[in-house]
Amino acid sequence: MTLPLTRHTDGTLGGLDYILSPRSIAIIGASSDENRVGGRTLRHLRQSRFDGPVYAINPSRSEVQGFKAYPHIGDVTGPVDCAVVAVPATDAVAVVRECAASGVRSVVLFSAGFAELGPSGKAAQDELSDIARTSGMRILGPNCMGAYNAGTGAYVTFANTFISGYDETRNVALVSQSGGIGSHLATIAQNRGLIFGNFVTTGNECDVEIGEVIGRFAADPSVKVIVAYIEGVRSAKNFVAALELAHSNRKPVIVLKVGQSEEGAKIASSHTASLAGFDAGYEAIFQKYGVYRARTIDEMLDVAYVCSRGVFPSTKRAAVMSLSGGAAVQIADLAVEKGLDLPAFPQEVQRKLVEISPSASTNNPTDLTANVVNRPEMFEACLELMSSDCEMVMAFVTVAIQAQGLAQPLLDAVRRVRTRNPRSVLLICGVAPPEIVREYENSGCLVFEEMARAVNALAALADISAGFSRTLEHHAADLGFLKLPVGVQLNEVDAKAVLNGIGIQTPREKVVESADVARFATESIAFPLVVKVISPDIQHKTDVGGVVLGVASAEATADAIDRISASVRRALPEARIDGYLLSEMVPKGIECIVGVTADPKFGPMIMFGLGGVAVEVFKDVTYRLAPVSRAGAMEMIRDIRGYPLLAGHRGAPAADLEALAVAIAAVSQLAARNADHIATVEINPLLVFPAGQGVMALDALIATDG
Amino acid sequence: MTLPLTRHTDGTLGGLDYILSPRSIAIIGASSDENRVGGRTLRHLRQSRFDGPVYAINPSRSEVQGFKAYPHIGDVTGPVDCAVVAVPATDAVAVVRECAASGVRSVVLFSAGFAELGPSGKAAQDELSDIARTSGMRILGPNCMGAYNAGTGAYVTFANTFISGYDETRNVALVSQSGGIGSHLATIAQNRGLIFGNFVTTGNECDVEIGEVIGRFAADPSVKVIVAYIEGVRSAKNFVAALELAHSNRKPVIVLKVGQSEEGAKIASSHTASLAGFDAGYEAIFQKYGVYRARTIDEMLDVAYVCSRGVFPSTKRAAVMSLSGGAAVQIADLAVEKGLDLPAFPQEVQRKLVEISPSASTNNPTDLTANVVNRPEMFEACLELMSSDCEMVMAFVTVAIQAQGLAQPLLDAVRRVRTRNPRSVLLICGVAPPEIVREYENSGCLVFEEMARAVNALAALADISAGFSRTLEHHAADLGFLKLPVGVQLNEVDAKAVLNGIGIQTPREKVVESADVARFATESIAFPLVVKVISPDIQHKTDVGGVVLGVASAEATADAIDRISASVRRALPEARIDGYLLSEMVPKGIECIVGVTADPKFGPMIMFGLGGVAVEVFKDVTYRLAPVSRAGAMEMIRDIRGYPLLAGHRGAPAADLEALAVAIAAVSQLAARNADHIATVEINPLLVFPAGQGVMALDALIATDG
Repeated sequence: MTLPLTRHTDGTLGGLDYILSPRSIAIIGASSDENRVGGRTLRHLRQSRFDGPVYAINPSRSEVQGFKAYPHIGDVTGPVDCAVVAVPATDAVAVVRECAASGVRSVVLFSAGFAELGPSGKAAQDELSDIARTSGMRILGPNCMGAYNAGTGAYVTFANTFISGYDETRNVALVSQSGGIGSHLATIAQNRGLIFGNFVTTGNECDVEIGEVIGRFAADPSVKVIVAYIEGVRSAKNFVAALELAHSNRKPVIVLKVGQSEEGAKIASSHTASLAGFDAGYEAIFQKYGVYRARTIDEMLDVAYVCSRGVFPSTKRAAVMSLSGGAAVQIADLAVEKGLDLPAFPQEVQRKLVEISPSASTNNPTDLTANVVNRPEMFEACLELMSSDCEMVMAFVTVAIQAQGLAQPLLDAVRRVRTRNPRSVLLICGVAPPEIVREYENSGCLVFEEMARAVNALAALADISAGFSRTLEHHAADLGFLKLPVGVQLNEVDAKAVLNGIGIQTPREKVVESADVARFATESIAFPLVVKVISPDIQHKTDVGGVVLGVASAEATADAIDRISASVRRALPEARIDGYLLSEMVPKGIECIVGVTADPKFGPMIMFGLGGVAVEVFKDVTYRLAPVSRAGAMEMIRDIRGYPLLAGHRGAPAADLEALAVAIAAVSQLAARNADHIATVEINPLLVFPAGQGVMALDALIATDG
Repeated sequence: MTLPLTRHTDGTLGGLDYILSPRSIAIIGASSDENRVGGRTLRHLRQSRFDGPVYAINPSRSEVQGFKAYPHIGDVTGPVDCAVVAVPATDAVAVVRECAASGVRSVVLFSAGFAELGPSGKAAQDELSDIARTSGMRILGPNCMGAYNAGTGAYVTFANTFISGYDETRNVALVSQSGGIGSHLATIAQNRGLIFGNFVTTGNECDVEIGEVIGRFAADPSVKVIVAYIEGVRSAKNFVAALELAHSNRKPVIVLKVGQSEEGAKIASSHTASLAGFDAGYEAIFQKYGVYRARTIDEMLDVAYVCSRGVFPSTKRAAVMSLSGGAAVQIADLAVEKGLDLPAFPQEVQRKLVEISPSASTNNPTDLTANVVNRPEMFEACLELMSSDCEMVMAFVTVAIQAQGLAQPLLDAVRRVRTRNPRSVLLICGVAPPEIVREYENSGCLVFEEMARAVNALAALADISAGFSRTLEHHAADLGFLKLPVGVQLNEVDAKAVLNGIGIQTPREKVVESADVARFATESIAFPLVVKVISPDIQHKTDVGGVVLGVASAEATADAIDRISASVRRALPEARIDGYLLSEMVPKGIECIVGVTADPKFGPMIMFGLGGVAVEVFKDVTYRLAPVSRAGAMEMIRDIRGYPLLAGHRGAPAADLEALAVAIAAVSQLAARNADHIATVEINPLLVFPAGQGVMALDALIATDG
């Protein structure tokens, strides 16, 4: 059997189209009771625009809800693109096997009772995975709520959230690993007038997993905004490919990724079969592809809502108009907090503002005051002026848009302004009954009640837009092959040699084996010295008396070695001692930390932060996927809160940011070149000297997996 | 004329009762057009339960909206407790004067066009203040939206937010300095079923100001929750007294204080006639009196809503139940973020949970899974179990509460649980039409759609409850009178002498006048020394070469003084040099900063933080009103993010927290004792040694106003 091209995608992802754009659907466990999941799904298909054959599978009936019933899936004569399986877990594997044997192209499996129950359920779920792999039949679930595509009318779900009717073909698509959260937020969204055109819940993911679904949405031209609820991604490859496609197609991806706290991760791993993963890996992936990470459901839906208009401003600048001075103050506060830029108006705009209303302030936000009540034409003139000056305009109009005598003039004014400025973003912050809100939305406005959420959503829109324009870094400049051996833990001396190999300076140093040798080995380096023990078994040298500072002579060097040797033997009798390192004291610089850590899903990540309390107490570090270019490294440097210290704090000279960025990029490439076995790199501290004077690694550790 | 006791308060605040509980009301500028402010106010009084005489004042009519009209306020024969003035600004002063002359007890002045316009308007507003002061007649406004008290039916406002009708006597009271924000949030609140029983907007505050209104609410037994929108407080005394009364009456005060950003403050001061003030002063006041500072309108209303039930848990512990594993993960994340405690259930509870549902997890949150759909009795058993274990219970039920066949069993279950556990807090997190939400609310539940807001509101409830139990510190232990002179800037030596006087150690030091003297002055202190210049004109000694470290002999001390002297004279030829300070080197300790700053509204505040980058980059400092006791100081120490460093970081010994707390308390008392003229104290660094070894001030600065 050959299949024609499916209806709603470019066909590149094939399999998922059997679920979202099937030509025929069977319901196994079809019921006439609409309170039962099989009954409810059948009702959806009865009421939606789905126009292919629907086969009810029920051995004890000849007809269910008006559909002809068949005893078994094998009895259906035509091809079945999608079979919904609504039977108890105990029967599910057999039924799915029967589907595969009958040539069914995809299964949507609602049944719970698999991996989420522990080892016994896991075994049954592995059988499902095997069936999918060997037959090529795609399986969504188990333990999911199914999916729908309003465009094709394929409602293969028992979700019950279609209060406003079926077949609303909107441009926002949702994928959720949790069925419960999926229907919860679809309902909340719908109550706010935001309807998902596509809805997929992936449940336990025995086969179809969230990255594929995001990729399908990224490829589907009818989808403009992707919303994803994520507990943990199984295939990093699919996920990254999907985000890359979404980025290149300029589609916002807005995620709520849970399990970022230790407590949440613990519950997540007991809840799903996936590892919640190290959250910084997700942060780095999201950062790279411009994915917007929402912290709450409200925020996720707010941001999806502003993106759904398809207008993306080119800057973070917004103009704000208010009928209330109090609101103007609050919006100014919020803009600072959220990073929305409210620049002073140009002189010309200020002059015109005074013309429009002599008592209005010329600040941004401007306060038109309640005078608008008497002269609504001021409102229109002000909006028009701002729309011509700024790509984003926000108007705080509170209850005025529902006030008797004022509602209609304001709405008419907004409509005219929208007609003249269709490519600007106009956000109305006000309170009104739903029917009035819809009028504004139909004219192309965004409507919010609360200014905090409005400001946050506009800032998010600008962030997402900026993300579209960023070029993804795939190949940073090649530093040559510096291949690290596998399964090693390099001591300070060897780790520093590696760093020298990638162009990072270290202090002038000499390794000696004993105090006696040291007496004669200090000619080539200048006093005072630092003397340190060299051992692969000692992580924190100072804790075991392994470091002596300020050593001023050859004799003192020998003494220091004797003291270190005694102290280390006392503290760690078993530690191997590879010798002693004599290092020149180095000039003062700013202590930074540069490291590499391997994310189990996404591979090596480069980390940068200030050293000392900044990293230990304030966790002021930032991560990126390795490698990063020099420009990417510079972005990391600017990312940390401690950046002002590097940029030249309180009149101090700026640090050598250029050299620092080159060093970060070099370490990131070392990690990327050894991506399959790198475990840890830690340069702590990396001293950064004033501009032009470079950086220097004072201590380093490198480890690889075996 | 003598007045009987007013109806709804204990009478302590007198004046405001003429506005909120008047026996008679006049409307000056009464209109038959309900779109006009005077007309709308009259309609409110026609429709509300207000049962005293209402006098319409309108020189050209004999009757307005069914009320007898009088040409002038002076023509009214009976006493007038409250006159609403709805006339243009140009006529307002004359009309208000007429009111005062006619014995009117209070005026509500809507008219705009006063101090908010600048100097000319300010002059007219000062006239209003004079009338109030000389006549004793209270004035609310100008530039306000008036007020109402649903209990008395006194709707002296042109706000138009009474969609659900008049006279809803609810226990939440609102005061807002902005009329626009006041009506905005009253409308949003009402749409959510939260209705304000009292509503006061204070506008430009020519007379009645926000502190008095809060105080009135604090005294009124019908008010249980106070919500305040604040741009800037005029009278710190009234405000503090009001918060103190609210605290002692265990009434939550929830504020949205705007103008905390520089941008916001700039607009606030251009908008109102008040100074926005230094925001840390507000933070300190709020902290002291347990005021909850909301960051958004949503948060303010959420917190008011949970408080309105009048049940305050004694701990931060909550038990959470979910029908969705995804939601359980998210709630766990949120609880960590918001500081809500979700402890593991006791063994006994875990055992019973497994009995209730063998497949449920025994974590907190517990995931009952969608099995509840088939067995709603599980839901009741679980809620009952949790309500007996915890004072706060949250149930994530999503759309189940509106699902066919499930809605009624769940509601019945909740009603039975509520009847058996009326003193527990039960929060239902779910999505349903308003009529279902009301059913749950009527059974005493709290209902939220979004888990993030639900978790935040429960955490806030617990915080507020904890605030009630804290004893306010009025008089910390007396350290004796250490009266500082006025108008001085003490140099390091004199400032250290003051610190010694309040029990804070400083290094062993000696002052010498010259290098020659130094040669003979070093017997009594041990080398190595630090040598520093002493000058009232030098703030940053190191910047001008005014400090030499590690001075090892008498001869080297003399050399150091010569070098310092030359360097300082080169850098600052005009600086007075009072001598040189020879200080012993001190052991290593953790660098902290302790300071005092004078808030223009609220007086001296004590500041504490870690030194170095912690204060300079991460702003990791905390403020309290001075004085604080040793216990209050200990709370400050625990407040900063860097606290782990003091408590014993990575195996290091704990610092001497006890000595640190005593030092902070001592400095705070020094400030309080000199509250009227203290300008600045800065001890930077204050070294804190390991436990038992005390603290030491290495440098200090003290300044007082003239």
